[in-house]
Amino acid sequence: MTVSEFAGELKKQDQILILTHRNPDGDTLGSAGALCLALRSFGKRAALFPNEQITEQYLPFVGDLQAAPDFAPEFIVAVDLASENMFPRGWNGNVDLTVDHHPSNTRYARLGTLLKPEKAACGEIILEVLKEMNAELTPRIADELYMAVSTDCGCFQFANTNAATLRAAAELAELGADLERINKRLFRTVSRSRMRLEGLLVSDMRFYRGGEICVVRIPLQVLRETGAEEKDLDDITAIAGKTEGVRVGITIREQEGGFAKASLRTDGGVNASTVCAGFGGGGHARAAGCTVKTDLASLERELVAATEAQWG
Amino acid sequence: MTVSEFAGELKKQDQILILTHRNPDGDTLGSAGALCLALRSFGKRAALFPNEQITEQYLPFVGDLQAAPDFAPEFIVAVDLASENMFPRGWNGNVDLTVDHHPSNTRYARLGTLLKPEKAACGEIILEVLKEMNAELTPRIADELYMAVSTDCGCFQFANTNAATLRAAAELAELGADLERINKRLFRTVSRSRMRLEGLLVSDMRFYRGGEICVVRIPLQVLRETGAEEKDLDDITAIAGKTEGVRVGITIREQEGGFAKASLRTDGGVNASTVCAGFGGGGHARAAGCTVKTDLASLERELVAATEAQWG
Repeated sequence: MTVSEFAGELKKQDQILILTHRNPDGDTLGSAGALCLALRSFGKRAALFPNEQITEQYLPFVGDLQAAPDFAPEFIVAVDLASENMFPRGWNGNVDLTVDHHPSNTRYARLGTLLKPEKAACGEIILEVLKEMNAELTPRIADELYMAVSTDCGCFQFANTNAATLRAAAELAELGADLERINKRLFRTVSRSRMRLEGLLVSDMRFYRGGEICVVRIPLQVLRETGAEEKDLDDITAIAGKTEGVRVGITIREQEGGFAKASLRTDGGVNASTVCAGFGGGGHARAAGCTVKTDLASLERELVAATEAQWG
Repeated sequence: MTVSEFAGELKKQDQILILTHRNPDGDTLGSAGALCLALRSFGKRAALFPNEQITEQYLPFVGDLQAAPDFAPEFIVAVDLASENMFPRGWNGNVDLTVDHHPSNTRYARLGTLLKPEKAACGEIILEVLKEMNAELTPRIADELYMAVSTDCGCFQFANTNAATLRAAAELAELGADLERINKRLFRTVSRSRMRLEGLLVSDMRFYRGGEICVVRIPLQVLRETGAEEKDLDDITAIAGKTEGVRVGITIREQEGGFAKASLRTDGGVNASTVCAGFGGGGHARAAGCTVKTDLASLERELVAATEAQWG
């Protein structure tokens, strides 16, 4: 589906409900928020499906756009939502249209899918859609889209950042997005629990193979001590890979019930997916995971051995 | 001086020596590197003054561009260098031309100063100069300028980032700058010493005024324990201000000889310069510092009291 076809379909509709994905991030929420505001500016009734997993830092962007209990949707649009198993909790209906940048999108939408896998963020596609619709791009819409674009590329630090990503951000800055406030809130503020947690994890980092493998262990006890909640664990797996010289970062988190969950991040030299497959897990070449009924120390020992064996 | 006048002046010259500032950062080095490469592409002899303070992470960008001992300069250009007391160690000659974005530039250059204080990075101005000169913007030049632009705005997170900054970065990405490699090297890699240091500092953070003031202390002993060197302390003052709810971040570092050096960063509510003036220091409203002959604990107590008094 093209941007123009997608925009044309939306123009015909009213009473539009917008779905964001499970464990919503800045891209799905900002994309949904911008789309909702633009649709409303055309006199349409539009609202976001109330995603119960929205975390605190995103609430100021979308809290006021969520559907009231009496909202009766006639048309369902999903944004940045790759497959039906990513539907938000409490949603099991159909979807009419989807806009997404995940190459793995399963084309579950009834009328069509606007898919641009070359985009770093779904927010970039929404910007194109709103321009196609001639929507007035207000500072609030620019804020929503800047949040969408910047969060999905780690504020332009991740490998998915490209010229188009930066150009979209420049355009949003010109439209009045409050970069200073959003960057401060989303990228330069850390909760006290997260700070304490990072301090403890870093002081217990383990290195193997002359520093090429780094293991970070997260026992339940440390989470309790620091008061860290799920929202404080965002991107915590990046810590193991950040140390100079590390080529494989392994994060092992203790789960309730005697399980340990591992995440591997590699620079591509070792295949993370192959290592994790040996433990009943899987993923991609550079990022994979597994969950095993064992203790942290045993899983660390076995994963390090399996990683070293893969080094060849 | 305009971009065109600056470019015109450079075109007339040969045997050009380029100065970078004391404690060189990515902006002064990347700007100098790009300018040097462009001048050479016109058949001119150009080289960087060997700045002995260049740290490891920047060497791959400029190491090969430094002047050989027999280089006989006829024309001196300083980049991103605000005043004569920022001249690199070992340089005490004259300067012919300057290009800079510091509003405080003292106009020390003989022929003229190209000054654009609205730019987040000097690299943005160099990009304009090179386009004015019709230089071929090679991927290497794009790398140099991307390093310049991205480092001076904290990879687009700092408050100085604006639409023009992002647009310049987009242009450099299109010209072939290797964003992934440069971002990984400059923003997503932390030395083991820095990691250990941050772990220790964070576990000893002190909060006052219900968490609105955060103090981070850096005793010499901690630097010795972690093996942290000067290069590991880059932007260390940001840590105190990063915790959620903090409005004044105070970093106090023990110096040799019984001195303590403090840096204050505020959100503007408290005037950092006023607080530091009371201790013989100074700076700006949001960022100031002072050095006092005292111990860390005493300076902490007195600075917190002075900050609270300013709160009004």
